Amino acid sequence: MIDQSANGPANGAPPRQSATVMKCLQLKQPGSLIPTHTALPQPGPGEVLLRVTRCALCRTDAKMFAQGHRDLTLPRVLGHEICGVEVATGQRYAVWPGSSCGSCTQCRNGRENLCRQMQILGFHRNGGLAEFVAVPRTSLIPLPADLPDALACLAEPLACALNAIEQTNLRGGQKLLIYGAGPVGLLMAMAATARGAATWMSERSDSKLKRSDQFRKGLNIASHDNRSDLAFDAVINAAPAREAISAGIKRLTTAGCYCVFSGITNAAAIPVEVINEIHYRQLRMVGAYGCTSSQLQEAVTLLWNHRARVNLLIERHIGLNEVEDALRQILAGKTLKFVVKLA
Amino acid sequence: MIDQSANGPANGAPPRQSATVMKCLQLKQPGSLIPTHTALPQPGPGEVLLRVTRCALCRTDAKMFAQGHRDLTLPRVLGHEICGVEVATGQRYAVWPGSSCGSCTQCRNGRENLCRQMQILGFHRNGGLAEFVAVPRTSLIPLPADLPDALACLAEPLACALNAIEQTNLRGGQKLLIYGAGPVGLLMAMAATARGAATWMSERSDSKLKRSDQFRKGLNIASHDNRSDLAFDAVINAAPAREAISAGIKRLTTAGCYCVFSGITNAAAIPVEVINEIHYRQLRMVGAYGCTSSQLQEAVTLLWNHRARVNLLIERHIGLNEVEDALRQILAGKTLKFVVKLA
Repeated sequence: MIDQSANGPANGAPPRQSATVMKCLQLKQPGSLIPTHTALPQPGPGEVLLRVTRCALCRTDAKMFAQGHRDLTLPRVLGHEICGVEVATGQRYAVWPGSSCGSCTQCRNGRENLCRQMQILGFHRNGGLAEFVAVPRTSLIPLPADLPDALACLAEPLACALNAIEQTNLRGGQKLLIYGAGPVGLLMAMAATARGAATWMSERSDSKLKRSDQFRKGLNIASHDNRSDLAFDAVINAAPAREAISAGIKRLTTAGCYCVFSGITNAAAIPVEVINEIHYRQLRMVGAYGCTSSQLQEAVTLLWNHRARVNLLIERHIGLNEVEDALRQILAGKTLKFVVKLA
Repeated sequence: MIDQSANGPANGAPPRQSATVMKCLQLKQPGSLIPTHTALPQPGPGEVLLRVTRCALCRTDAKMFAQGHRDLTLPRVLGHEICGVEVATGQRYAVWPGSSCGSCTQCRNGRENLCRQMQILGFHRNGGLAEFVAVPRTSLIPLPADLPDALACLAEPLACALNAIEQTNLRGGQKLLIYGAGPVGLLMAMAATARGAATWMSERSDSKLKRSDQFRKGLNIASHDNRSDLAFDAVINAAPAREAISAGIKRLTTAGCYCVFSGITNAAAIPVEVINEIHYRQLRMVGAYGCTSSQLQEAVTLLWNHRARVNLLIERHIGLNEVEDALRQILAGKTLKFVVKLA
């Protein structure tokens, strides 16, 4: 492996591709994450080979590790929050992890994240917890020179947060409540604030609130006192607790919008009052899943604007051998962002 | 009482207001609907006195009779689907049953049906199951001469159906599925067809399907075979069954919209899969409650266009003394529209 600076190789110095075998982490089945050596991925037509420099971990990775996922096929190299360097050119990129058909109704309407033919890195095809990854050229988002790799790999979760905000039609000056002050909730709050929304966060864990204190204070994002009777124009769940559905619907102003950003892991049913509240107060409930390529471009710019601040969201830089432990910590729900250093 | 033609008094012949006492039906408490004589209502500032000619009954009236309603205060004269004649001028009107503040956020955004100060005839104030009713002048919708009173009183449910369709953002050429082929479902199907949508109806009761056969055929509205795998751009429930939520969400195309037009009476909870389906497929769930004054104006025009057809939706013309029995039949869910003849 090549010894690289924290920000990737110097411009114009392509990384060597000396080996034909690479290290990666394979999920064989839920619970079984195996460090292994495999042949380098062979880029298909229209694809390029990236040397992965950083890959961040998220709650979905942890969920896939623990119990699988609707869109996961096994065995699989996980990792969809990727920053890498094109082997052929040395150019640095963030990666939009999807590849869509480009011709269906969803693709033609700019919602390629909903394409039925979607193939997602780290879900349907091998992702970024490896030294190399093959990526469609159309999925590469070039990076500004002074955005470090460790921050650039946060473009994907930030783009997903942007997608959620867009589904709510939130406008400047309106009030937003976010359930869950984990890394993606905090990125979402940052993005909403950048769009001029007044943003509150509801978080049950005092330790999480404390850890995000500096990040939130810098953006003037208050923690929401659940006893307050503030009414919100939009509510987004960035936490898988079922309770955030019923509680959030009640906190919406009439004709307000609830965005289901996080799937609900608790299997218990939803009270019928939620549906009747939607009926009587003409509320909207909208889903958000993944992100589009243009949302990822916007996320890169936003990260660049906030690059000093976003550093605060990184819990720890780790190696491939520490991933399993990190995923277990993510499941316990008390950490910020783990960034895996691959090169 | 004055003997009038089925279409109200001849133009220019104001109805006499000979009495100071009128007949009405008062709901004293759920289950107790009492025919009574009361003083004529006294119009407040900005209000006029109408002689009610026809008042139609709907499922909400039946529900208020059986178990009350969120917006009902007692004792109350029910009836919010009203056609009447202004006592002072003889002019015929359909009645928008609301009166809103005009200055809140909802009113200023054209959603006066969601005004917090809303006072609804037959809910918060006395309605149309009476010989006379006091109505804000701003709630009067003038009628074309050849739209009979018995059809004009259907403008209110049709306007509520239009409100639901508008919440879905349904466009011409798109596919709509309506659960429930009762009167309001059928009016909704008519309105959607008029907007160029391809419309299907799902109805569990064979007898209801059979009764609406002629109406549906004339509009080319198919009954939906629940085994079909058609995907719909929008689904609306015009029936209170909880099952129409889970089943309808599954039938939506990706990024499609479910409109909760009917509240859910069955208290059983909603499976969490409904929420996760909204998440994964970026579906929208929107509420619809009541209607705006401009939707009621549009409904009058639509009724006029379809006046021959809409007649098919009337189950029976009845008197005040038959209302309680009619409400019980509505609760049993097998009838079309009852229209009460007041004058």
